[in-house]
Amino acid sequence: ESRLPLFATHQIGVAGAVVEESTGKVLVVQDKNKTKNAWKFPGGLSDPGENIGVTAVREVFEETGIRSEFKSLLSVRQQHNHPGAFGMSDMYIICRLSPLTHQINFCHQECVSCEWLALRELATTGSTTPITSRIAQLLLYGLEQGFDKIDLTMEELPAVYSGMFYQLYHRQLPTTLE
Amino acid sequence: ESRLPLFATHQIGVAGAVVEESTGKVLVVQDKNKTKNAWKFPGGLSDPGENIGVTAVREVFEETGIRSEFKSLLSVRQQHNHPGAFGMSDMYIICRLSPLTHQINFCHQECVSCEWLALRELATTGSTTPITSRIAQLLLYGLEQGFDKIDLTMEELPAVYSGMFYQLYHRQLPTTLE
Repeated sequence: ESRLPLFATHQIGVAGAVVEESTGKVLVVQDKNKTKNAWKFPGGLSDPGENIGVTAVREVFEETGIRSEFKSLLSVRQQHNHPGAFGMSDMYIICRLSPLTHQINFCHQECVSCEWLALRELATTGSTTPITSRIAQLLLYGLEQGFDKIDLTMEELPAVYSGMFYQLYHRQLPTTLE
Repeated sequence: ESRLPLFATHQIGVAGAVVEESTGKVLVVQDKNKTKNAWKFPGGLSDPGENIGVTAVREVFEETGIRSEFKSLLSVRQQHNHPGAFGMSDMYIICRLSPLTHQINFCHQECVSCEWLALRELATTGSTTPITSRIAQLLLYGLEQGFDKIDLTMEELPAVYSGMFYQLYHRQLPTTLE
């Protein structure tokens, strides 16, 4: 099998949208450097060998002090010639997380502020990025109609050659079909 | 913003599941080398700077001779230490495509066979890989209940800094909410 290119072309960035279902709030930060007045989901780059969900949980904790657990994959963005990616392409994945703690203790080196913000406000404010706004709309829809409407759930499947397992994300099948 | 690592960690592989809605058949191949007796979706690695959907359509054409168009993103798999990835991690994305032509003219260097196979058969046969089987089940569900149940649709959004556009994939929102 010859499937050029035989080199890595993408960095993987992951953001975590930590949604508190009982209050309809989501954890957002304002970056220190780039997007001072824009609410965003905390996140960052995957370390080599690190799974998507692990990156999301780790970055959320490092930036905000909030412990959380992975629930689903919500969105994938592919961007080429991205200024932060130094000539590589960037695959940016947004996950839905569920909070395990609630007391914010944010990283003052990375962020100027961090809040639990109402999803309804995030979905309508101008003080955010287009992608954050769209995912906030998606999350609001999920909060009202059920997150199964918006989630890609994860399952582990066996790799054919290595005997290892990998993570596959897709829409959940009705249990009657599995 | 300092988000190490400042190097690419992943290669992006893309497969195309070309589904003919009127017959319930999907285009599958058997690889020459690796998985001789396993039906799989045609696919391969993204070229640098190439969008997911473009890779899927290109690889399907190169392997099978079938022209198709991108419809949606179905599934994302992340795999580390993958034997074909030479120490990199592998992000493997399966797209749903719609056929524009139907006459198979497959690449004999890459494949030993290529067929339009009934989705129902692909979903139940043992002659396939676990991931192909699972996506066949997902596609069968979509064929019967509507592809909106399984699709992540693509939209283009403006990048904040560069003024360029990027592709964002997520579950489609009801039009009343957008």
